[in-house]
Amino acid sequence: MQSETLLEKLHTIDREYRHLEKAIALLQWDQETYLPAKGVEERSEQLALLEGIAHERLTGSETKGLLEALGSGSQNPKGDENLPPIERDFLKVMRRNYDRAVQLPADFVRDAARAEGLSQAAWADARRNNDFSTFLPHLTVMLDYAKKKAEYRGFRSGAGGDVYDSLLDIYEPGMTAHDISAVFDPLRDRLAALLRKIASCPQPDDSFLNQDYAIDEQARFNRELIDRLGFDTTRGRLDISAHPFTNSLGSDDVRITTRYCKNNLLSSIFSVIHESGHAFYDMGFPHEIRSTCLANGSSMAIHESQSRFWENVIGRSSPFWKHLFPLLLSHFPGQLRRIHTADFYRAVNSVRPSLIRVDADEVSYSLHIILRFELEKQLFSGSLSPEDLPSVWRQQMKTVLGIEPETDADGVLQDIHWSMGAFGYFPSYALGNLYGLHIWKRLRAELPNLEDAISQGRFEALHTWLRENIYTWGCRLDPAELLTRLTGEKLSALPFVEYLEEKYTSLYGLETGTE
Amino acid sequence: MQSETLLEKLHTIDREYRHLEKAIALLQWDQETYLPAKGVEERSEQLALLEGIAHERLTGSETKGLLEALGSGSQNPKGDENLPPIERDFLKVMRRNYDRAVQLPADFVRDAARAEGLSQAAWADARRNNDFSTFLPHLTVMLDYAKKKAEYRGFRSGAGGDVYDSLLDIYEPGMTAHDISAVFDPLRDRLAALLRKIASCPQPDDSFLNQDYAIDEQARFNRELIDRLGFDTTRGRLDISAHPFTNSLGSDDVRITTRYCKNNLLSSIFSVIHESGHAFYDMGFPHEIRSTCLANGSSMAIHESQSRFWENVIGRSSPFWKHLFPLLLSHFPGQLRRIHTADFYRAVNSVRPSLIRVDADEVSYSLHIILRFELEKQLFSGSLSPEDLPSVWRQQMKTVLGIEPETDADGVLQDIHWSMGAFGYFPSYALGNLYGLHIWKRLRAELPNLEDAISQGRFEALHTWLRENIYTWGCRLDPAELLTRLTGEKLSALPFVEYLEEKYTSLYGLETGTE
Repeated sequence: MQSETLLEKLHTIDREYRHLEKAIALLQWDQETYLPAKGVEERSEQLALLEGIAHERLTGSETKGLLEALGSGSQNPKGDENLPPIERDFLKVMRRNYDRAVQLPADFVRDAARAEGLSQAAWADARRNNDFSTFLPHLTVMLDYAKKKAEYRGFRSGAGGDVYDSLLDIYEPGMTAHDISAVFDPLRDRLAALLRKIASCPQPDDSFLNQDYAIDEQARFNRELIDRLGFDTTRGRLDISAHPFTNSLGSDDVRITTRYCKNNLLSSIFSVIHESGHAFYDMGFPHEIRSTCLANGSSMAIHESQSRFWENVIGRSSPFWKHLFPLLLSHFPGQLRRIHTADFYRAVNSVRPSLIRVDADEVSYSLHIILRFELEKQLFSGSLSPEDLPSVWRQQMKTVLGIEPETDADGVLQDIHWSMGAFGYFPSYALGNLYGLHIWKRLRAELPNLEDAISQGRFEALHTWLRENIYTWGCRLDPAELLTRLTGEKLSALPFVEYLEEKYTSLYGLETGTE
Repeated sequence: MQSETLLEKLHTIDREYRHLEKAIALLQWDQETYLPAKGVEERSEQLALLEGIAHERLTGSETKGLLEALGSGSQNPKGDENLPPIERDFLKVMRRNYDRAVQLPADFVRDAARAEGLSQAAWADARRNNDFSTFLPHLTVMLDYAKKKAEYRGFRSGAGGDVYDSLLDIYEPGMTAHDISAVFDPLRDRLAALLRKIASCPQPDDSFLNQDYAIDEQARFNRELIDRLGFDTTRGRLDISAHPFTNSLGSDDVRITTRYCKNNLLSSIFSVIHESGHAFYDMGFPHEIRSTCLANGSSMAIHESQSRFWENVIGRSSPFWKHLFPLLLSHFPGQLRRIHTADFYRAVNSVRPSLIRVDADEVSYSLHIILRFELEKQLFSGSLSPEDLPSVWRQQMKTVLGIEPETDADGVLQDIHWSMGAFGYFPSYALGNLYGLHIWKRLRAELPNLEDAISQGRFEALHTWLRENIYTWGCRLDPAELLTRLTGEKLSALPFVEYLEEKYTSLYGLETGTE
């Protein structure tokens, strides 16, 4: 058979797999937004069936045969060198998806999914009752499944066969714990130093953020906000869910959610900006890779680099609120009439170590992540037993942020990730911060008038740059390749910490120089 | 293999087919409610894929083998006589579903679906531009597909091999055009006579129904309305769509929609009551048939008997508004403060021949259906050419209702059904009216205090009766069997026309006796 025909067949498998994945995404989206309470059980059966069908479609013997006929193997995933570059990238990603899917036996996936369901429910109970002991047996089971998964995946040969490296690779292809430590270690030191400086300064008054803000009015503001940001509602939606998320239900159907809290003006606004950043990425893949497996983010961290970039670098900037504050004021004239744009800018950037990661400010956020990364390393090296997690957590929070949770609910039990067996996922958030600032440095060099444009509500040039330099690649480039192509640099904590030091030195009137 | 094991395997196929059907229902529901405009194209590809997978799951060779091993054939669909009655009914319905699915070649289904898509789009354009000629070629194609479909299905032997009978059987198993005429002929005469009497009477003032009614307030009223009707929102939802519908996405996930019009208070209210009637049926199947193919309505007409019963017999009754009007008044005190319950009851029952079926009153509604039924018979017997439809339509409207559409948009182009190739579907609506009144007669005999209860907002006894006598059967009984079991009667127009004559004689102060 001609390689065109073989490729066509492989594209058909990919397209059908993608349609199934998108149908699954709709079932999941609906479960988080509109599903009637009693529909949950049957929905989980529908999901299990569709996931099984999608898995079969990808891992059928036809896929393997086509990959091999096209010269794509584990050693040479891109296949025949005469193929067009985009098709070679397609083969690389198909090969990776296929290899990952067949690595795990169907029985293992099913058993793990069932255990995850139980574990998540136990975690939710344990958190509600502040009782780590009832979650501990499930956590142990989840750790065992993670270890088995790493075994099935095969330890990565270059990295000394570490279990944790194998898990990290799921979220950040090609990145080891050693690589991550190399950027996290200096990051931790510089952030801790910055935090200490800020702690000695007076805090801005941000109490006005906690007045009553009618939820309907917040929702009206957010609809105008996404419109101004350039979110195309003919290709996406904004809805409400318990935990904000972005889900792509199609190339032209990318949906974000937020949640509302009457006494917290910022919570919904910043989650909307954050999720919009994810959505812009998913909406921005170019026509030639739409409907293929290349129309995905390069990695979790690169995806987070987009969301956290929009949320913080853009969304917590002075030009941004110069543009947006008058609109916000028009929605809440009673609550905000005495507040000036500069006060608001200071309030959205107040830095105060706090217990909960998702509520953390821009400076301390990454420290929450590093703490989790260190604990995960110890859990998988065996130097930390799961039953000791609560006390070690408290001790580490004290060391890193100078505060200590009174309850495990506000400590080790606060995040859902471990209950789902998603070990190795946390670093992506902080890596996203770092990638985001590499990108910002480049952006500012190429678009010197960008901040002016933002202060006038003009985001077109920014969208165009991100589309032409990042989104256009989909997942054709791995994170490191993408960064090199964009900046010629290797990942470093420096752009991020320098950005924070500059911003907060100015905001808090810090003295410059070393401590 | 033991028949228990064979049955289990067949139940697994049925359950998986059902999960796929429900996933498809979610994709369709979402398309009508929340799908971003540009997501339509990819959604249709997702749907086509899932429909293909569902069809394969049902028609795989395993299904046929299991049915045969269990003794279920076309002659003896219920299989082995020693099986429990519920399993014999399960076999009957599985056999019917299987036979229907395999009758149509996959190519034919795909080609017809594509032609339907084009035809629906052409119909929408033709209606918008009031230009029947652009729809005519598509209508001709749809008629050809319908004839081919009847061929594939095999003409029904007992009925003289009529194409139209074969199409009617899709919606009303076992019913022929001859059977339908036997009830429609007397129905037409009695309704026409009643209409003539009413036409000579003064009309009630119902102009207050067309004031400004804020849509948000209508929506708030409707949420309270479904709550009072007993619609369990932990097992269903009410949303908005261009055309109201009910869709079951799971045993505990039945969703209805409505549409709002600022200057029409009744439109959304009666569509909500109508769709609630459908939803109560779908929510009411008993535990032992949930998640099986038996958890469906007996036929389209029986389903309509539930929705039109709730909409008209209950929803346009005096006790109903005795209970509901104070609530409506509290939502629209400005618009309704001078209206008494009795005025409102009269206004929701004003009878006035009109051009559009979906807006028709209770008396003339069935005449709109009979007109369509007569035209369909002629189209399939060959005595009417599709190009003559517009003029014959106008002529028939004049004869039947005494009015004539000025445009084809308000005439032959008003309904979507023919553009979808759904010939034989219309009679179900009027048959639903007839079944509904058979049921109502029985209900009143068994629950003599029902109208009192309704006037106090107590619908529990009604729900219980419908559940125990109708919903409990799912589609285990065909319509005729269900009616016999409920009433000992055969389908007749009499209960319906007698109900209308009594109600409107009283409402309009008509003279009794013959004309």
